Formats: sequence, structure tokens, C-alpha cells
Amino acid sequence: MLRKLFQLSLLLLAVTPPAQSDSLPLPDNLISSSSTEGEELLIGADAREAYFTLAENYLTQQTQSFCGVASMVMVFNAMQLPAPEVPEYAPYRTFTQDNIFNASTEAILPRETILKQGITLDQMGALLAVQPVDVMVRHASDANLDTFRSEVSSYLAQPGHFVLANYFRNALHQQKGGHFSPLAAYDRESDLFLILDVARYKYPPVWVKAEELFTAMNTKDSDNDDKSRGYVLISRKS
Amino acid sequence: MLRKLFQLSLLLLAVTPPAQSDSLPLPDNLISSSSTEGEELLIGADAREAYFTLAENYLTQQTQSFCGVASMVMVFNAMQLPAPEVPEYAPYRTFTQDNIFNASTEAILPRETILKQGITLDQMGALLAVQPVDVMVRHASDANLDTFRSEVSSYLAQPGHFVLANYFRNALHQQKGGHFSPLAAYDRESDLFLILDVARYKYPPVWVKAEELFTAMNTKDSDNDDKSRGYVLISRKS
Repeated sequence: MLRKLFQLSLLLLAVTPPAQSDSLPLPDNLISSSSTEGEELLIGADAREAYFTLAENYLTQQTQSFCGVASMVMVFNAMQLPAPEVPEYAPYRTFTQDNIFNASTEAILPRETILKQGITLDQMGALLAVQPVDVMVRHASDANLDTFRSEVSSYLAQPGHFVLANYFRNALHQQKGGHFSPLAAYDRESDLFLILDVARYKYPPVWVKAEELFTAMNTKDSDNDDKSRGYVLISRKS
Repeated sequence: MLRKLFQLSLLLLAVTPPAQSDSLPLPDNLISSSSTEGEELLIGADAREAYFTLAENYLTQQTQSFCGVASMVMVFNAMQLPAPEVPEYAPYRTFTQDNIFNASTEAILPRETILKQGITLDQMGALLAVQPVDVMVRHASDANLDTFRSEVSSYLAQPGHFVLANYFRNALHQQKGGHFSPLAAYDRESDLFLILDVARYKYPPVWVKAEELFTAMNTKDSDNDDKSRGYVLISRKS
């Protein structure tokens, strides 16, 4: 009984955020991008073209269900697509987590629904296609680790090409549930991808093993008819 | 007469933002951080420790007078100081351009005043000192190019050390007036500093010659008894 209580308290310690902490400790399988190792990975990365324009447009998701919204805004600004007006910034324009919604996006998925339950991988594909971009949605269950690695690393190496990952945080030992964030770089030698996590109040950007990320994407999403999560490839309209 | 009209129209072209453009074109004296040259400068920079944690916390100023507020928030989050609560992110905490204000900051400079007229260099020093940090305010008129270059590049190379620049945009051929933004890196060979401009709707981060930046800081601020602008050195309380 005592042993069970001890095990339970260990489990609680492992899953409960420390009350006074601002963000969460990083599990051992992930490397913070601003650790010495993380900085060296970026400097030496084979594919990191996406990093620079994404870092210039890095955002924190506005609410706990807006990971997909923040990810889209980062990519649209990084691509320098024609942006809507923002009264505070007139005459300048930029995409924000407020002005990204319009009649076309409302018809696909109302903002109110996103506020309640977020966005699925297929809804993300449809929402992105409202802009003048080419979009390819990849369910992890239809891909494999090799095709994921080669097609995503190729995108991250080309100007104007971007990738959003839709993964199950728990599979990365993070808290928790389904999540969206942009991928920014790939290092071949270590086989690590860099995720620019948009829940910046919670976790820093992290380097993660390709296989582990693929496994976290190859998870069933009950909000999407149990289809698997995956990734979206985005480029300027050809 | 025709020649004068032609000159006038050239002048208007040079100072009027293009009506359909989202942001402003960069003048020739500045290098965009996501240009090929800008990326190479960062990879090879001698002092770039500040860059990584600042890039992870990069923000857009919330209003056209909040450049100083956004700059402070970036530095506080980059330093991982104990942050106030944010209802949307509970139980996680982070500094935002809303929750940075409290009774101590209101006593120094009310939020309403900042909304109207921004922050001067000396007010910035006082506002920063509300947090558990060591702050040194440097008016450019009391410094010179050599002391500026050596003390700022030394800060940018040390973990937990940050620098905010207060400069007159017009002196960099930018639009326009006094501005605050964090400095993030220094490259010795080219003698260039990287500014992470918080008016992201207007300009990207830029590399600028040390001498040009110092000249832009060594300008009189009529909101601060005509004292010169300058920079602030910030580090964790020793």
C-alpha cells in the first residue's frame, strides 16, 4: 500500500506542473534550441532555410486552442503573402491571430469552433488553401519515416517552403494532447528536426528525433474520424 | 518646372509607403537578417549568445507606441524571470505586453502615458529596474563608438545579458522617429550589429554598422529634456 502511494506520488510529480514554475521542464528526449547543443545544431544544420523567416515571425498562440492559428499566421507572414489590415498598425499590414479569419475560413471552420476544439489536420489543409499557396496534406499513416524525413527536410532547405507538424504531445513526453507547430530545420547527422513550438508559455523550441516525431504524428485523432495526424507542406502557388 | 515636379515626385516616392505594400522596403545601408548575407552573418557572428533566447521570445509591438514595452517583455522572458499570470495560459505564466504593468510601473510611468508617447531612455532604465535585474543606462553623448562597441558586444556574448537600443530611425534611413528594440548579435569583421526590430509589421530584423547605430543613438530626445538616446545594459541581479 505504501509502495503504491509512493508510486502514485511519483506519477503525480511527473505529470503535475510545479506550482511556481512559469513553464514546464523539458523531458530528456528533447533538446532546447537555446542550449549549447541546440545552438550548435542550428549552426550546423543541413536544412535551415525555413528557420530564419519563421524565427522573424515567431508567435505565441493566443489561447490554448490556437496552436494551429498561430502556426498559420507565422507561415503566412514568413511567406510575405498580401496581409489584411490591422487598425493599430495602419498603414502597415500583417497577419495576426485576429485578422486571419474571413468569410472563406468561417465557411470551412468557424473561429468559435476553433476556440473550443482547435483544428484537425484536414481542416488545416482547407484553411491554408484559402491563401494563394500550394498545400499538400500528409497523414502519417499514409507515409513512412523515410518519405517524411526526405520530403520535409527538402522543404526546410528551400526558400518559400514551409512545413506544419500535427502531433500528439504525449508521444514526445510533453504535456499534452494534439498540437500544431511549424518545423524549422533538420540536422542529418543527428537525424533531428527543430520544432518552433507556438505554446511559448509552456515549452521552448526543441530538437526531436525524426523517428520520435513521426511516431507522434502517426497517432489517431478522434476529432478527425480517427484518421492519423501528420504534416502539411506549404509553398507559394506555382 | 517640369524638372522640379519630377524631383518632387521622386521625393514623394522615396518617403511615401507604397499603398499596397505590407511593410516598408529596406534602405541600402541595412541588411535583412533573412537575406543570404544576413544568415551568413548570424552563423559567423562573434557575439550571438543573446540572439537565441531573444529569437525564441520575439514579439511584435502591440501598438505603434509600445516598442519599449515589447522590448522589455522579450528581455524578461528571455531571462526567464518569474512571470505574472495570464488567464488564457493558466497554469503557465509568461510576460506579455498586457501584464507587464503593475503598481510599481504605474508609479514610474502610467501605461496610459506610454500609449500616448512611448518611453524615454531614462524611463526605460527605471521601468526595467522594477524587475530583479541589474540595469545600466548609457546616454550615447556620455559614451563613444569604441566604448559602445566593446561593452555591447561583450554583453551579447554572455548568457543572461541583454541590450536594448534607443535610436532615431531617420538616422538609419528608416521611418521614423525614436525607437526601441533589442540588439541580438555582433559580427566583428564587418562591424555590424543585429537589431531585432519589434515593429515587425514594418521592418525585418536588420544588420547595421556600429558607427551608424551609434550615430542614430547619439541624437537628442525632446521628450527627455533633449538628452541623447542611447542603450541599456541588462543582466540578472548579481
